[in-house]
Amino acid sequence: MQRVLSDQLSAHVGETVRLAGWVHRRRLLAKVAFLVLRDRAGLAQVVAGPEGLPGEETVVEITGRVVANAVAPGGVELVEPSISVLSVAEPPPVELFRPALAAALPVLLDQAPVTLRHPARREVFGAAAAAVAAFRATLDGLGFTEVFTPKIVGTATESGANVFALDYFGRPAYLAQSPQFYKQTMVGVFERVYEVGPVFRAEPHDTSRHLATYTSLDAEFGFVADHRTVMEVLTTVVRAMVAPFADVRLPENIPVLHFSEALSLAGAAPDEPDLAPEHERAVGAWGLREHGSDFVYVEGYPMSKRPFYTHPSAEPRWSNSFDLIFRGMELVTGGQRLHRYVDYVAALTARGERPEDYESYLSAFRHGMPPHGGFAIGLERFLARLTGAANVRETTLFPRDLHRLAP
Amino acid sequence: MQRVLSDQLSAHVGETVRLAGWVHRRRLLAKVAFLVLRDRAGLAQVVAGPEGLPGEETVVEITGRVVANAVAPGGVELVEPSISVLSVAEPPPVELFRPALAAALPVLLDQAPVTLRHPARREVFGAAAAAVAAFRATLDGLGFTEVFTPKIVGTATESGANVFALDYFGRPAYLAQSPQFYKQTMVGVFERVYEVGPVFRAEPHDTSRHLATYTSLDAEFGFVADHRTVMEVLTTVVRAMVAPFADVRLPENIPVLHFSEALSLAGAAPDEPDLAPEHERAVGAWGLREHGSDFVYVEGYPMSKRPFYTHPSAEPRWSNSFDLIFRGMELVTGGQRLHRYVDYVAALTARGERPEDYESYLSAFRHGMPPHGGFAIGLERFLARLTGAANVRETTLFPRDLHRLAP
Repeated sequence: MQRVLSDQLSAHVGETVRLAGWVHRRRLLAKVAFLVLRDRAGLAQVVAGPEGLPGEETVVEITGRVVANAVAPGGVELVEPSISVLSVAEPPPVELFRPALAAALPVLLDQAPVTLRHPARREVFGAAAAAVAAFRATLDGLGFTEVFTPKIVGTATESGANVFALDYFGRPAYLAQSPQFYKQTMVGVFERVYEVGPVFRAEPHDTSRHLATYTSLDAEFGFVADHRTVMEVLTTVVRAMVAPFADVRLPENIPVLHFSEALSLAGAAPDEPDLAPEHERAVGAWGLREHGSDFVYVEGYPMSKRPFYTHPSAEPRWSNSFDLIFRGMELVTGGQRLHRYVDYVAALTARGERPEDYESYLSAFRHGMPPHGGFAIGLERFLARLTGAANVRETTLFPRDLHRLAP
Repeated sequence: MQRVLSDQLSAHVGETVRLAGWVHRRRLLAKVAFLVLRDRAGLAQVVAGPEGLPGEETVVEITGRVVANAVAPGGVELVEPSISVLSVAEPPPVELFRPALAAALPVLLDQAPVTLRHPARREVFGAAAAAVAAFRATLDGLGFTEVFTPKIVGTATESGANVFALDYFGRPAYLAQSPQFYKQTMVGVFERVYEVGPVFRAEPHDTSRHLATYTSLDAEFGFVADHRTVMEVLTTVVRAMVAPFADVRLPENIPVLHFSEALSLAGAAPDEPDLAPEHERAVGAWGLREHGSDFVYVEGYPMSKRPFYTHPSAEPRWSNSFDLIFRGMELVTGGQRLHRYVDYVAALTARGERPEDYESYLSAFRHGMPPHGGFAIGLERFLARLTGAANVRETTLFPRDLHRLAP
């Protein structure tokens, strides 16, 4: 007998069907027992006698007759069940059938192989998959090509700090902090590229918004006018990613502040080189108050705080770069990059770096690169803002940080 | 003026349009010059006077009038061009306009930022993106959920050998050799999951088919009858991945050999524990000869050569696992896994391992896991077989091996 999923039961009233899944809840009453079965599609109620019912998380197959019952979840239930156990289970360390998972963060994470089964937890990571699919579908529609670039690199040149070192067949190597150099190089090949993959940051900070590795949604493309072209594409992407969430406020136009306006609005000193978390919160509050938007672009960050490949604005103190603030926290960094070889040589030299150390990266520019730019979205941070999670560890399946390497 | 892509030119005959891209080829004749422009969609011919034309790989914008010309590529060309240079270029290290790229493998790889621009190289990686999209679309359609699991792990337990070690905030940690443990764990959450991501193998072998890191297309799912259910899903996935390639021979049913039959057919001794490359070639030749198939399944590999989580067959010497041979080389490994906690404890103990060392992995099985299985496809190896590349380095954007860490 073909297996039926829980969300298809109502199409089979009167028939005998086979369900399979986990015992989500067992409720023993005096003369009857209810068993709630969980499968990948949802939950289904099974009415059984009170004897010999398997415990929670047992994996079972249940054959029974589908009957309509207005007070059952979904309006249907299974009666006269024949239950066979596929796999026994010890009682779970936390009760998964409670609507809210009553577990402190360390328990949630230590017991992740089981706590992730809770429907509320599962929902977060289902949303993650949907958001990444929306990212890809939007960019595919705009003529982008997906690329897969190396995560092990020979030089720790991109920022120097916060890299993980490894033993590469007896030589030193490093985990890539971002696909930045490679995605720019690939603009020379495909014009428009994206990559979804892990990035690695040896973050010595123990905060609610930093992880040692996270999933970065990177895009980069050529023939842009300036960073505003990049912002347009990003807005299209973000609109698709938040589309399933009715509570996200994303107006037709996302408000844009210049960095200096953002500082002033946040009450910060005009010579501050960057936005602190409290400044981002003030910017976020302004966007919501004045424009009904959960998103605010801040553009024109000072060149002094941006990486060497950043393209300056017409006024060279400011850059053609931006952050996208989502509900008071930086979600995306992006901008226009330098595209002329001579500009790279000058920018590196001005920062006391040796262009020779960047030789294979610079070879792309030596041989002709268009004006281009791009952005990177942190998936886990996006989910945290979206779901209201206080800590980015809640929106990562198996987070890695200063202290955590397992599960 | 809106930019037009090269493959849209024929829709604009008689109009003045703007193209943008790279000078793919400059051909100076006595009184006229042809400039071939390359953009992300293809090539376009531009007819110009012989004076002052930019060199190959220069990034240009060209405004001109589109005229029909039966002998021009695509039947159209641009005349009376006005050319502006966006970015100058030094001559490329190899001639990119030649139909075949005349470069030995080391040059191809050392100069990858430029050699990847060659249309034949670009085509390989366009095919890679399409294959991965087909993998995802097929599994999405079957109710799978995409997951993102950690690439840094605390214990080198999966196989012990060939792992990269790194310094994790002063502690030892390792790069994940596969998402095996995590994808199995996630079957307990979503039933059906897949992941596309890098895996890391400290391969000390310098062969044409091994790399230190590659892109693994992993799937895992629950409620299988045995490994044959896994093979059915894999066949559906592979059929979608090769669909654009008319020269791939994939019959309605992929032939299946038992491991012992494969040995015999390859003329190997019946007690050989594994298939050597020459045996795989013999199996591949048999599949083509007897079944007109580029693919052959070999099932029932000896338990002794498969990882501890492998499910045995009814005859316990053999396993419920398989390889899929594509054109004479192993492309996919898969099978049914153990699903009962007690079976894991017994399997680990029998191999002299301590179940305590696998505690968080085993917690998924302790708390109820269905019969399940899965597979992993090596993307670069798939592309090598598909395109006839002799070396998997030709089908990797920026390969990493025993000797190569750059570009």
